[in-house]
Amino acid sequence: MGVVVPLDGSRKDAGLEPLLDLVADDMARVNDVIMSMVRSDVDLIPELARHLINSGGKRLRPVLTIAAAQMCGYEGDHHIKLASAVEFMHTATLLHDDVVDESDLRRGKTAARILWGNQASVLVGDYLLGQAFKMMVETKSLESLRILSSAAAIIAEGEVMQLAAAKDTTTTEDAYLAVINAKTAALFSAAAEVGAVIADRPNDVQAALESFGRNLGLAFQLVDDALDYSGKQSLLGKSVGDDFREGKITLPVVLAYRRGPEDERAFWKRTLEEGEQRDADLETAIGYMEQHAALKDTIERAHHYGAIARDALEIFPDSDHKSALMDAVTFTITRDY
Amino acid sequence: MGVVVPLDGSRKDAGLEPLLDLVADDMARVNDVIMSMVRSDVDLIPELARHLINSGGKRLRPVLTIAAAQMCGYEGDHHIKLASAVEFMHTATLLHDDVVDESDLRRGKTAARILWGNQASVLVGDYLLGQAFKMMVETKSLESLRILSSAAAIIAEGEVMQLAAAKDTTTTEDAYLAVINAKTAALFSAAAEVGAVIADRPNDVQAALESFGRNLGLAFQLVDDALDYSGKQSLLGKSVGDDFREGKITLPVVLAYRRGPEDERAFWKRTLEEGEQRDADLETAIGYMEQHAALKDTIERAHHYGAIARDALEIFPDSDHKSALMDAVTFTITRDY
Repeated sequence: MGVVVPLDGSRKDAGLEPLLDLVADDMARVNDVIMSMVRSDVDLIPELARHLINSGGKRLRPVLTIAAAQMCGYEGDHHIKLASAVEFMHTATLLHDDVVDESDLRRGKTAARILWGNQASVLVGDYLLGQAFKMMVETKSLESLRILSSAAAIIAEGEVMQLAAAKDTTTTEDAYLAVINAKTAALFSAAAEVGAVIADRPNDVQAALESFGRNLGLAFQLVDDALDYSGKQSLLGKSVGDDFREGKITLPVVLAYRRGPEDERAFWKRTLEEGEQRDADLETAIGYMEQHAALKDTIERAHHYGAIARDALEIFPDSDHKSALMDAVTFTITRDY
Repeated sequence: MGVVVPLDGSRKDAGLEPLLDLVADDMARVNDVIMSMVRSDVDLIPELARHLINSGGKRLRPVLTIAAAQMCGYEGDHHIKLASAVEFMHTATLLHDDVVDESDLRRGKTAARILWGNQASVLVGDYLLGQAFKMMVETKSLESLRILSSAAAIIAEGEVMQLAAAKDTTTTEDAYLAVINAKTAALFSAAAEVGAVIADRPNDVQAALESFGRNLGLAFQLVDDALDYSGKQSLLGKSVGDDFREGKITLPVVLAYRRGPEDERAFWKRTLEEGEQRDADLETAIGYMEQHAALKDTIERAHHYGAIARDALEIFPDSDHKSALMDAVTFTITRDY
């Protein structure tokens, strides 16, 4: 079982590999289902969908569904459909997000909306969402349908919340957490929970995976927020400073704003609320964040949610799956891409 | 039962009133459900949703679900949820359509995207779609879920198809029919069919309502296409010539293009394919359409689908609901708004 590092009980540097190995066969089947579901006589749909699907995302969400179902001893086929539906929901969200955020890059490639236009991105997103629901219906699991359709509504609600809060530098950490709980953690939590649901495991097991997914999702998003200011563009697959240029208020900003003096607050208001940005502003922003330990503490907060995710999993007996999911938490909070 | 007009077997000028009377009580409950489902702590969601919901659409789609369920003798409550879900799916489509089409008006009111921005329109559309699926799941009717989630994917596919075909004046009538089958008729047909499904009626009854809805939807869209060139703006609730200005290839254009000489075809290519429009172009377009009977024949085609819709209903025994649905067909093809 590898070297145990006492600090947090997980194997050092195991990363995502153990998890990806366990789900590899099923994820190949997920890939086949995904490819078959983007077939359409309307050429634009497979073209655009494949652009996104092949652009090398980590597919963490469907991996969670597969891993949870496997850990729960599920032996049927429906987890493949649920995992595919989860990835479609995520892909649809990305397409719509890029339109809403006016992003130019997505996972290091030119965003679909730049290549095919905002219109196609909106509509192909809708198409993928429809296909996602069709796949869920095929599993005949009303409980999974309930969980994933609720997640769909919550994700959209979270995006609207962020739109409304986007230009308010005085946003509290709590308010920001509510946003990422909805827009990111809801799908992680639903993805993990339906793995237990489809395996027909009792409520405490479902709740454990729901909590694991939610807290992993929060940790994932917070690390993303920090990497947007500190990551290496070549590893990151998106531009450093995207959030800054789009005027997004993320946790590093929330912390730097609250901790800084008045003249720094004026800087944040000018650059993010008023969107008036000059050449060296991104460097200045990163400087303020480092001065106030805003990036370091964003990662600290991620560690906190990572710890909760680990404890949520503790009720499971030891297994390769449990270890691999624990390693995935470590990866999520220590990754630099 | 009113005066019977021999020509098409329906009561002259009865219009939508008999149908709306029969469904009035249930539609009041649909309205309550809709209002309760757009409640959100995120103010933008109820604001924007109510703007659309209160803007006086005919609500034909949920009316179809309620009328079909009633005609099938359904006595439960689930048809209220299905009808509300159908209206949410439609509203979400409108929000996304306005973004895709860059429309300024919707049902005679300023389009939501102008008031709140494209971003909010995309996201609130997603939210409504999520809420629609939640309501469907509550009915526990997997067959209804299958029908409506398929419709959601087909509608989006149809919109993408139209996007791809939007600038091709040589589109055939068949190709155009495939588009409106997907983007309009699919939801009409699903809305009617689930009324029979929830009442647990046999396949031939489901198929009859599916066919009724589909053909009514085709007729409805074709009349809409004609009214876009011939309607009175004050009655229409949208601008005359919207389709022309947006370069949409609808059936009146398809017919006028094919029937006209080369110089007229050059006109259609310049105005619609190249989007190069001058002051008097809309009047010229309407002139060409009248000269080639393109508007009259678009309405003729609508009559054809209306006749099929009527025959689909004939297997039902006589009832107030059957007569009222027959009247709705007549209204759909003779309306001037």
